Amino acid sequence: MWQPLGVSIDSRPDVLLERCRFPAPGTPLACAVSGGADSLALLALAVSAGCIVTAVHVDHGSRPGSAAEADVVRAAAARLGAGFASARVVVEPGPNYEARAREARYGALPADVATGHTADDQAETVLLNLLRGSGIDGLAAMRPDRRRPILALRRAETRALCADLGLDPVHDPTNDDPRFRRNRVRHEVLPLLADVADRDVVPLLTRLADHARAMGDHIDDEAGGLDPTDARTLATAPPVVARAAVRAWLRSTRADRHPPDAATVDRVLAVARMEAAATDVGGGWRVGRSGGRLRLEPPRR
Amino acid sequence: MWQPLGVSIDSRPDVLLERCRFPAPGTPLACAVSGGADSLALLALAVSAGCIVTAVHVDHGSRPGSAAEADVVRAAAARLGAGFASARVVVEPGPNYEARAREARYGALPADVATGHTADDQAETVLLNLLRGSGIDGLAAMRPDRRRPILALRRAETRALCADLGLDPVHDPTNDDPRFRRNRVRHEVLPLLADVADRDVVPLLTRLADHARAMGDHIDDEAGGLDPTDARTLATAPPVVARAAVRAWLRSTRADRHPPDAATVDRVLAVARMEAAATDVGGGWRVGRSGGRLRLEPPRR
Repeated sequence: MWQPLGVSIDSRPDVLLERCRFPAPGTPLACAVSGGADSLALLALAVSAGCIVTAVHVDHGSRPGSAAEADVVRAAAARLGAGFASARVVVEPGPNYEARAREARYGALPADVATGHTADDQAETVLLNLLRGSGIDGLAAMRPDRRRPILALRRAETRALCADLGLDPVHDPTNDDPRFRRNRVRHEVLPLLADVADRDVVPLLTRLADHARAMGDHIDDEAGGLDPTDARTLATAPPVVARAAVRAWLRSTRADRHPPDAATVDRVLAVARMEAAATDVGGGWRVGRSGGRLRLEPPRR
Repeated sequence: MWQPLGVSIDSRPDVLLERCRFPAPGTPLACAVSGGADSLALLALAVSAGCIVTAVHVDHGSRPGSAAEADVVRAAAARLGAGFASARVVVEPGPNYEARAREARYGALPADVATGHTADDQAETVLLNLLRGSGIDGLAAMRPDRRRPILALRRAETRALCADLGLDPVHDPTNDDPRFRRNRVRHEVLPLLADVADRDVVPLLTRLADHARAMGDHIDDEAGGLDPTDARTLATAPPVVARAAVRAWLRSTRADRHPPDAATVDRVLAVARMEAAATDVGGGWRVGRSGGRLRLEPPRR
């Protein structure tokens, strides 16, 4: 069995910071901090980077222990010299809990809040999008930008940093619940892939994401000149460029955070080629065609 | 647990043939037939398609039961009205047995021989290349062309067709040997992914392969105009195009059937950008730089 990051991790903040993307010292930065190791490490590193940091904790009213987490975050922020703010969201139990909780959480946070996503999260997202049936664009997963300053770090590094700093992360029991697909990817799929490949697969998957993003961006540039509502344009463009134009169009009009799946994009192209009159594109939206133009139609109330 | 292709499969040859790519009736076609369900189905469908078919069996001298397989193939060919030919290769036991056996087998077969690769094999190849650290080009996996006429069929369909036709496939025990990575992908990784996704993931993976191939071909067209030995050209081209040029260059000069891994391609680009003087590219080959030109250097004897 392959052992992840077995031997030694250099968790000194200055060493880790070389692989982070924090804004210039003195810049205000809101960090989303759940109290887990990843987000506590984000908080500590943001302070080390010289930012003026506020730890923002989202209290999920419905979950037991959520208020205790807030105390952990508040205490860590005080110790590290960061500000603290909290927001309370209420998510009713029921179907799609994870997705609804995420939406509520993002709704309660500043738009440019920094999150503690790591390379391990990135690898999980690549696999989750793959299992969702995304195209290459889904493999691009999360874009490394200032909202994800520690995306190049490993989860094991955030844990080691917390241990070094004497920060005691809270354990979120929902991270072990196998009803959430991400947890099965984390606890079952990734370990099996590492065992079969006989190597750490997280760097393979994050590199794949980088390459997919670079290819996607390159083709998106080309697709930017295309009118996705002109059926003839779509039908005659190189299919990869037409797909990119359709994807950008669908994403621009949908609240859904997930990339449209590849089958949906191909069905829209079939409408453009007059092989179908209309198609569902998810969430009750449809794409139809009239007089050589494609139209995106909202759900009927 | 998700059940693969649970209910009914229409295995009538004329229905299956609609998703196959056989040459026109009357065309001579050599089919590689091991005696397994996939290759027996290939043989039967090639005959149904009206090709003038020769079943070519490769006898792996070293493997017990290999001669008995030849008898199964000979009998099936006779029954279906196909010709029969056999080739004997000797593969010594030892490391990399699977790869060496494959090379020997291809060496003993006509260059344009048709193989019985199915959509399930394609999905496995996508995952194997991913686990090998390939870039997006590796996800493109096998190109659907006349050498792979049944690449759109499912393995379950080839089994059902054999059963309908009263053909009794031989069971190759090496297909169960977990020392071969492909078998672990087949028997462990794919079932787990299907269970986590709660759907058949083979169509997701083959569609991803189609999209990766289309994107790769599109960018390869652009890269075709680039001289991969000109360091300045590589260093200033868009990275995705430069990567495609390097990949094509490495592949053109190496016997290796696998796509060069993404890390290797990126190291060659680092040489072009003068961030490194030279780098290994696998198999003892190196890429070095002198006077603004990159050179591929063969292994030292």
